[in-house]
Amino acid sequence: MSRAAQSPAARAADPARPAHPADGTDAADPATAPLLRARAGVATLAEQLAQRLAERIRQRLLAPGARLPSVRACAARQGVSPSTVVSAYELLQAQGLVRARPQRGFFVREAAPAPEPRRRAASADAAPASLPAPVDATALIRGMFQARRAAVAPGMGTLPEGWLDAPLLQRALRRVSAGDAAGAWLSYGDPAGDPRLRAALSQRLADIGVDAAPGQIVTTVGATHGLDIVARTLLAPGDAVLVDEPGWAVEFARLAQLGMRLLPVPRGEHGPDLEVMRTLIAAHRPRLYVTVSVLHNPTGASLAPAVAHRLLRLAEAHDLLIVEDDTYAWLAPPRALRLAQLDGLQRTLLVSGFSKILAPQWRVGFVAASPALAQRLIDTKLLATLTTPGVLEQALAWCLEQGALHRHADRVTLRLEAARARTVRLARDAGCRFVAPPAGLFGWLDVGTDTEVLAQQLLDEGYLSAPGTLFHVSPRPTTLMRVNFATSQEPRFWQTLERLRRGGIHARTSGNT
Amino acid sequence: MSRAAQSPAARAADPARPAHPADGTDAADPATAPLLRARAGVATLAEQLAQRLAERIRQRLLAPGARLPSVRACAARQGVSPSTVVSAYELLQAQGLVRARPQRGFFVREAAPAPEPRRRAASADAAPASLPAPVDATALIRGMFQARRAAVAPGMGTLPEGWLDAPLLQRALRRVSAGDAAGAWLSYGDPAGDPRLRAALSQRLADIGVDAAPGQIVTTVGATHGLDIVARTLLAPGDAVLVDEPGWAVEFARLAQLGMRLLPVPRGEHGPDLEVMRTLIAAHRPRLYVTVSVLHNPTGASLAPAVAHRLLRLAEAHDLLIVEDDTYAWLAPPRALRLAQLDGLQRTLLVSGFSKILAPQWRVGFVAASPALAQRLIDTKLLATLTTPGVLEQALAWCLEQGALHRHADRVTLRLEAARARTVRLARDAGCRFVAPPAGLFGWLDVGTDTEVLAQQLLDEGYLSAPGTLFHVSPRPTTLMRVNFATSQEPRFWQTLERLRRGGIHARTSGNT
Repeated sequence: MSRAAQSPAARAADPARPAHPADGTDAADPATAPLLRARAGVATLAEQLAQRLAERIRQRLLAPGARLPSVRACAARQGVSPSTVVSAYELLQAQGLVRARPQRGFFVREAAPAPEPRRRAASADAAPASLPAPVDATALIRGMFQARRAAVAPGMGTLPEGWLDAPLLQRALRRVSAGDAAGAWLSYGDPAGDPRLRAALSQRLADIGVDAAPGQIVTTVGATHGLDIVARTLLAPGDAVLVDEPGWAVEFARLAQLGMRLLPVPRGEHGPDLEVMRTLIAAHRPRLYVTVSVLHNPTGASLAPAVAHRLLRLAEAHDLLIVEDDTYAWLAPPRALRLAQLDGLQRTLLVSGFSKILAPQWRVGFVAASPALAQRLIDTKLLATLTTPGVLEQALAWCLEQGALHRHADRVTLRLEAARARTVRLARDAGCRFVAPPAGLFGWLDVGTDTEVLAQQLLDEGYLSAPGTLFHVSPRPTTLMRVNFATSQEPRFWQTLERLRRGGIHARTSGNT
Repeated sequence: MSRAAQSPAARAADPARPAHPADGTDAADPATAPLLRARAGVATLAEQLAQRLAERIRQRLLAPGARLPSVRACAARQGVSPSTVVSAYELLQAQGLVRARPQRGFFVREAAPAPEPRRRAASADAAPASLPAPVDATALIRGMFQARRAAVAPGMGTLPEGWLDAPLLQRALRRVSAGDAAGAWLSYGDPAGDPRLRAALSQRLADIGVDAAPGQIVTTVGATHGLDIVARTLLAPGDAVLVDEPGWAVEFARLAQLGMRLLPVPRGEHGPDLEVMRTLIAAHRPRLYVTVSVLHNPTGASLAPAVAHRLLRLAEAHDLLIVEDDTYAWLAPPRALRLAQLDGLQRTLLVSGFSKILAPQWRVGFVAASPALAQRLIDTKLLATLTTPGVLEQALAWCLEQGALHRHADRVTLRLEAARARTVRLARDAGCRFVAPPAGLFGWLDVGTDTEVLAQQLLDEGYLSAPGTLFHVSPRPTTLMRVNFATSQEPRFWQTLERLRRGGIHARTSGNT
């Protein structure tokens, strides 16, 4: 492996570990590197290929357990002979990065000794429905950080940076950090979060129909932290949790890491399948249901009022709490219905943040809950992070108070509508079908070929995609994928996808299985 | 209960819940309120006393399970008749806030249904040493937020605000948030943390003898978050963990909440008792030891080199990892020895932050670990908070790069030395004895009377203290307490303590037990 790109800063680091992808210290991006060419005095073609794949394994773009492409498919894609691919795979095997399974091909090994499973608290008689969630969400999450470096990232989870408004945050920060304001930084601050932000959030929630006093709002380090605090407060290891499937893999991984048993509920265009949910409740007595009511990730679908009503009655009958992840709130239509609105935050907790509309690095989110639950959430927050940074919360409060965030959101929503119309046309022209009516940031698309294989091929061409398997509790082959309407407007991407899609059928049937 | 002080903002909040202490919305501070006086047309004396105690219970200054003072002691302290106290206690009982135990007195009830214990994963045959840690650290933590409002807070965990340097942070923030810098806020940023800060921290660690490349450093939302991420990465529910006793109750509570079994190791002047540790290792096979090597909280003691060496050999022989909480790093003498220095971060992880030297609300901390462990910590960080706020990390990097933080720390250390000399003299004059030689921010003091009873009495006089029981895995009566050298320089506090200490012996022997 070439050491040339390694920075002196990594002097004490494990020599086998590559520089971190987002460090900017590794010059060669495997996703956009040119095809392999034999170069004198350097490495052989097989060594170059092995090195490229090894890098991808270490960066978890090839997740532990993933199957490498078939020798023939890989050879065709890289423009090398099958024997070169075989040599490369054998090199990876010798390095302990992959292992061969007779008749099945080469598979990525677990890199580091994994932490002991958190699942031993789960009851041994768990039915097949309560799957232990072997999701490797780190592949997806780490992929998010690759997105900036890929030429085009149709699988990205956020708006393009050019759509956001850094000068607004700069103005806000100047306003709230001048003069005496800095004195407040010298204490730990309010455990519930900055009072000014909680007042502004209370007003904002009222605007979307959710009645929450400032005392019912607890601020967090982004929506992710909000979901984490809720799970740690309400659940104990071994508890069963209902989740939407398809759904957000990072949430699955977080719950699995905390030792929970995941009960996937099929999520349709109008909401969760309540009959399945009823059966799971009877069999497993879950304590919590985690869902996205508005602009669900990945389908873009929103909860229908009648389903919402029946869902709340079911929850009440079985003493189920509901976490409503409202991450896409600012992209939602004005009349979107939330469970928190219907039940007045009695058994619903609402979690949201600002990564999808303002700035992912600002890391401010919140949870709204009943007064009693809010106090328990504060206790967990104190144990997890003590308090949250007040200066960032005050800057956000300023943006809300001035109406600046609302005006920004209006502009973004208009722009997203245009992008969605364009992307939908391109996708349909490329022979793809939307499973749910296109809405919000994400489209949920049937491309007619295994999207995990396709994702690997797209990566070779410089495109980061989000294959459907990432949105399932247990990885399974699927022809679905998620596209970000804002970052999928290039005709060239859809042409590439259509070409691979057709070739993909060939590769799948002729590959080793 | 008077509703006059409740803000309109709390309109939808639980009427039984008081406005949050740090909100500034509740005008009457029970800790500094005048003694009870009968007032026409208001509440009876008993009602006033019950109301004051109820407030204290709700704010957890009287923790669940705590015993109320004896009737006689309470009557003497409040200047009312014993029958008034009996009426007040009965009112509290009627409100469900306390319960009477025959021959034992009145005890604070659990307020809200507590979350289901996380300890069911613990093995049933756990020996007495593996205590299930019924620490109510929220009392201590929430007390931290009372500190600002108490007239004097000798139990405070931080430096006084006047010792810190807000203008430095303002300058830093202006520098790193101007111009194009804001563009970086628009992506999630580096999962490991801001590269500039990690480079500056690598240099800082080198200065104190710890060799850690930037790639071995993961930033967090303060040291608390660092300790949380480490525990979640390295441990599974039911695992045994060695901790120092006395030690930091918030860490005990965090580990207990995560379902760990705590194994307390007596912490002496030179370090942990290695013979006890060896026995506990043999019996329980712990995976981790959490400790403060330098300026240990609460004793102020630092690890002796010979103990450090033997400790590391013991850890190596039993494959034990060590988390070294270096929260007081900036107040430490230049030659303080850390385990991370001796073993080169092989099996030691170092956690630190800036709350004790720069600004508690800045919420930036970090973990330094081996390259392989650092990658696993990043995975947990991604699940817990995704990334951390880059603008705060860059501002801190600027403070480090300019040498401004070092100069500030030098000034603070000199000032603390003077405060310590003064406080030590006052404490000794008041008849108290230091258990460990005074050093750093905290003194560990034997006052010769039950410090939990004393803490309650001190609170009545406007002083927030830190009784020794808060630093034990299981609450137990102790005559020890922690004092903050910087906030305990008032002779009047020590006169009060001396008076109560003498009266306290009387109250203890004459009270109901």
